[in-house]
Amino acid sequence: MNNEIDRICAAAKEASATLALRSSDEKNRMLAAIAEALIRNQDTILTANAEDVRVCDKPAHMIDRLRLSPERIAAIAEGVRQVAELPDPVGETIEAYTAKSGIRIRKVRVPMGVVGIIYEARPNVTIDTAALCLKSGNAVVLRGSKDAIRSNRALVRVAKDALSAAGFDAEAIQLIEDTTHEGAEYFMKQKKYVDVLVPRGSARLIRSTIEHATIPVIETGIGNCHVYIHAAADLAMAKAILLNAKIQRPSVCNACESVLIDEALTDKVPSILRELTERGVAVHGDAKTCAAFADAIPATDEDYGTEYLGLEISCKIVADVREAAAHIAAYGTRHSECIVTEDRKAADYFLAHVDAAAVYHNASTRFTDGFEFGFGAELGISTQKLHARGPIGLKELTSYKYLVEGDGQTR
Amino acid sequence: MNNEIDRICAAAKEASATLALRSSDEKNRMLAAIAEALIRNQDTILTANAEDVRVCDKPAHMIDRLRLSPERIAAIAEGVRQVAELPDPVGETIEAYTAKSGIRIRKVRVPMGVVGIIYEARPNVTIDTAALCLKSGNAVVLRGSKDAIRSNRALVRVAKDALSAAGFDAEAIQLIEDTTHEGAEYFMKQKKYVDVLVPRGSARLIRSTIEHATIPVIETGIGNCHVYIHAAADLAMAKAILLNAKIQRPSVCNACESVLIDEALTDKVPSILRELTERGVAVHGDAKTCAAFADAIPATDEDYGTEYLGLEISCKIVADVREAAAHIAAYGTRHSECIVTEDRKAADYFLAHVDAAAVYHNASTRFTDGFEFGFGAELGISTQKLHARGPIGLKELTSYKYLVEGDGQTR
Repeated sequence: MNNEIDRICAAAKEASATLALRSSDEKNRMLAAIAEALIRNQDTILTANAEDVRVCDKPAHMIDRLRLSPERIAAIAEGVRQVAELPDPVGETIEAYTAKSGIRIRKVRVPMGVVGIIYEARPNVTIDTAALCLKSGNAVVLRGSKDAIRSNRALVRVAKDALSAAGFDAEAIQLIEDTTHEGAEYFMKQKKYVDVLVPRGSARLIRSTIEHATIPVIETGIGNCHVYIHAAADLAMAKAILLNAKIQRPSVCNACESVLIDEALTDKVPSILRELTERGVAVHGDAKTCAAFADAIPATDEDYGTEYLGLEISCKIVADVREAAAHIAAYGTRHSECIVTEDRKAADYFLAHVDAAAVYHNASTRFTDGFEFGFGAELGISTQKLHARGPIGLKELTSYKYLVEGDGQTR
Repeated sequence: MNNEIDRICAAAKEASATLALRSSDEKNRMLAAIAEALIRNQDTILTANAEDVRVCDKPAHMIDRLRLSPERIAAIAEGVRQVAELPDPVGETIEAYTAKSGIRIRKVRVPMGVVGIIYEARPNVTIDTAALCLKSGNAVVLRGSKDAIRSNRALVRVAKDALSAAGFDAEAIQLIEDTTHEGAEYFMKQKKYVDVLVPRGSARLIRSTIEHATIPVIETGIGNCHVYIHAAADLAMAKAILLNAKIQRPSVCNACESVLIDEALTDKVPSILRELTERGVAVHGDAKTCAAFADAIPATDEDYGTEYLGLEISCKIVADVREAAAHIAAYGTRHSECIVTEDRKAADYFLAHVDAAAVYHNASTRFTDGFEFGFGAELGISTQKLHARGPIGLKELTSYKYLVEGDGQTR
């Protein structure tokens, strides 16, 4: 029993019924009010955030993600305004037909109801998520981490006050302030009130959510992504894609963690890998890689299953596209996988056989992203097959229902 | 550790890769071979089934569902042939567009991979499920109940031999013969190999699955369905719909379990409810119902939450469509809900406000069914919002992936 979490989730559920029926215009006014209030109250937010930063004992790169500034608050507010500009998925008639019995069936897009999210110390996620949920007609229960609790409290207070002042129900946004593990596990079982749960963060958080949740989960963001350089690759293109996928932003889930190089290109291995090592990337290679490239460190089997999220990469020389696909099937996380080749047959084999949210031919894995895919914004990248795969945008935060009209039909 | 369940699930996963790429024609040949083999081997199947029936200590209606006959086997084989006739959902291009960066994105329908199903002593489900999974390109792991184990073993043997003889991989169909609770719970955690798990059976089975599974679950089949007779209902239509929804097949999930009658119709309550009691239905009513109709038994709060699955119904007199919708929100299971009225406004209020897989206006809740909806067949009725809602047909057994082609694009 945790009365506070029960109360929070029940309040979100109650608010969700009215929110689900709000017009696009009303939801856009909610978002405009929040965006405006964030700017107006930035001093309050920055004061709370400064205290979070002051007491945080985490490494520098985590403190960097925790820290807000007037510029970052302006960017968050701008993000909220951009979500308001996106088309509203709710109410869309997905299908409409008359069945044999004469009943008229419409399959109509509706909000999920209540979306729960568990995330780490990134205060921007608090508002980004609330905006996506509100626009898709969903109430939201936010459960951020201890390190960002003061920032989250301030942000949610500002957003709730903005909703109230604009005449809307502030209960549509809820923050769980209990940041204990026990609290998180209790939250994961609020199936009565919460319709979907999205864990956003470390592999450990995601594993724990899958283990404990009774709420349906959308698994996100573990990306052990591969770039396979096929025998018939344009080498300049292959190097550019590999470099971009590995180092443009190594800490994100769509970054490349492993490069597979075709055996036919063994003599090109040094020139390919030097591109990486020159930029500070450590290369963990199999025996063939190490034989071809002296700067490679011998790879263990564990390396091929590791999401480094930093300046490290594993490398394996493979016989052909079949071995590449088999290696990816064994070690990949079904996120984003790429082949670089000018050979149509090899590309088609790879696209058909590799099982992942996004399979690329001659483009960087870094494109698996809601903005790049044209969704406008995203809650994360789903790596499961149920419901949503790849970027989770507004449409992926909806369900549907069947509206059936008859003239007294019975069976 | 349960080596046998691990082995079975891993074999299904391995078979799923090839199966996913089979053409519609190949999959239809698989189904034709199974249908033909069921007829040819009906004596073996009937012998095994007779032994299941002989040792079964369950009530008569359960033994009836367990029992096979030449006619029932013919019907199962015909069902398999009908699934072969259905359009293949796999390979459909759901969307195709060029993103700002110039990458060309195709969202393509793909199989789930491996579908797991846990079900009760109905041997027809074994073959129905296998047929739907194969046609949608999925391998299937079947976990039936102890009472049907000999029947299931015989049916799966016949189906696997038919696949082998026709040159296909028999490993695409797997049966877990361990029918213990511990075995079921172990199976529910085979996330590494099984992509989606569908429990089909009692509320207890479904609760246990949600509690223990780490595999993503599609929750099915608990239906506390309501018929609301509005003040402006055509009374003859209302009686026909109520009667059909309650008694045409009381044991199924889309049968009506509760009738809500508008206060304005209080004087009509006896004539409405007599239709039911005359056919042997026990009516559990609130105080107002009991005052209006002497044959009603006083209802407890528990009655309103009960899925009787038999000749019983709860009844409540409500003030208006708002109270009806609020009662359904409190007690319904989001399956199928019906309003009978000639008033457009009341109908629209009900359709918009009631949150369920199927919301009906002037038609029986009994239509929530894959065949009636035109899907051709179904694996069950989903009562959750994630992924699939309502009938689970071939399309609901698929996921999608993004195929992205570029000319060397990087970010």
